[in-house]
This record gives sequence, C-alpha cells and structure tokens, in this order.
Amino acid sequence: MFTSQPIGFVNSPYKDASEIPKGLGAKHEADGVLKILPEFEPGLTDIEGFSHLIVIWEFDRSHGFELLGTPPSDNRPHGVFATRSPRRPNPIGLTIVELRRREGIDLHVRGVDMLHRTPILDIKPYLSSIPSERLRRGWLAEAEARQRG
Amino acid sequence: MFTSQPIGFVNSPYKDASEIPKGLGAKHEADGVLKILPEFEPGLTDIEGFSHLIVIWEFDRSHGFELLGTPPSDNRPHGVFATRSPRRPNPIGLTIVELRRREGIDLHVRGVDMLHRTPILDIKPYLSSIPSERLRRGWLAEAEARQRG
Repeated sequence: MFTSQPIGFVNSPYKDASEIPKGLGAKHEADGVLKILPEFEPGLTDIEGFSHLIVIWEFDRSHGFELLGTPPSDNRPHGVFATRSPRRPNPIGLTIVELRRREGIDLHVRGVDMLHRTPILDIKPYLSSIPSERLRRGWLAEAEARQRG
Repeated sequence: MFTSQPIGFVNSPYKDASEIPKGLGAKHEADGVLKILPEFEPGLTDIEGFSHLIVIWEFDRSHGFELLGTPPSDNRPHGVFATRSPRRPNPIGLTIVELRRREGIDLHVRGVDMLHRTPILDIKPYLSSIPSERLRRGWLAEAEARQRG
C-alpha cells in the first residue's frame, strides 16, 4: 500500500460541491488549469500531443465511505462501485478532460468537474474508446428512460 | 493525502511482467477475475448492468518513479504522464475491462493487463467515450507511423 502525494492542484471555477453540475444530462464543459508542481515538469514531456487526458485526483473534502448510496441521477440506491460517488473506500476521482494547451507546468483543459485546489495524483494519456454500440450503461440508462417516460 | 487500501485482488494469468503483451498493437484480451473482499460486496450492487468497468489498481511490484522514460512502444523517451509506465509518482494503474458476468464477489472480466494478485483500489462504471475522430494520440501515433513506414 502507498501514501498518496499530490503532483499538482486543479484551478477550477467550482469552489463548492453544490456548484458542480450533477445528475442526468449534466455537462462538464468548464475550463480549468491543471497546475503541476515544478519538480514534476519533466514528466509532462510530449503531453501536448494528446487531445484528451485521464486525470486521477483525490476527493480531499470527502470523508468516510458508503457502500450503498443514492446518486443525484436517480432516486434509487446503487453500489458505490456502480456510481461516481465521492464517498469511496479509496477517495480516488477520475475525470477525462480535453487538453487545450500547455504553458510550462500549466495544462489548460476543458471539462473539469473537480473543486478548486483538488490534489492531482496522476495524469495518463487517453488512448482508446469503447464503441457506443458495445457500451451498456446499466442503472443509469434505466434512470434516464424512467425520467424521459 | 490518504493511505491506499485494497478492495480486492486481481486473478490474472500473468505471473510476471514479461508475460504481459506490450508495445504497439498489443492486445489485452486476457480473461481474469476481480476478487472483491467480502466486506465490500454491497458496493457491487447493480454493477452487472454495465458492460465495461474502469479498474484502478496499484503497481505494487514497481518501486520509485522516473519522470522521463522510453516505453516499449517507442525508442524515444517521453514524460511519465504521457505514458502508461509503472514507475509513477503515485503507483496507480488503470485498465478498462469488459464485465462478462458477476458471481457474488467475483467479477469475471476480459481485458486484464495486471499481474496476478494486484491490489484493486477502486472500480467505476465506464460511461462515455470520445469519438475517434476527435482523439489525438500524440507520440504514440507518430511511433506507429514510423514503424509502418
């Protein structure tokens, strides 16, 4: 097991969780900056060639976990591993962002859904996608269908 | 910051890193089982409705990190955050797997690229995909073009 360490922090327009779009059809198109710590700058070499990045970060303002919970997108409870709840056994969040440009240790991105000053744990290039015709979205598709109906 | 804790372990056909397909065109189609610890079983509720899962896990047999390294898919060095290198500041790995079936605390999946007994940190439903026409793959696309040429 390991102790997490920040490689940087998110500059986000969201100062409070209530400001982050949630629930069915929520769009994450906010612009933000991934501010990487200077000592990790060599790790960004060649990152500007990728259009999308996987950002792994810490839910640093969430405490404890809940194995069953009702997400904002439904009125029924689901297992934490079938949702994006912040109250997880390991408080790890994940967001896919679009990389707009790099300025040194600042990655300007679109699509942030993290709070301002969220610690960043890792960045990976986003490489593949599952074709939509092969993707099943479980309870979320059902919740959407119920709300449409 | 937090200390990671396993929510389960991977049953994988790979006992040594040398057995895992790597480099350009490597396919990850191996079958494996995500064996979740019994105390976390309620967190799996409704997970069987999703076709694909994001598995976040720990590079537990990797030590230290290297900000610049040459991946198996190229002969030029790249920044660690532009690669999937195991030698990262936070030793966090990520794999998207296809969920074939659930048997209690056992998730039978396809597409494992982890070593046997790798600690699992988190599981999230895989929900979205970036259309391939909007995806740029940076140095990896260039390395592929060089090898084809």
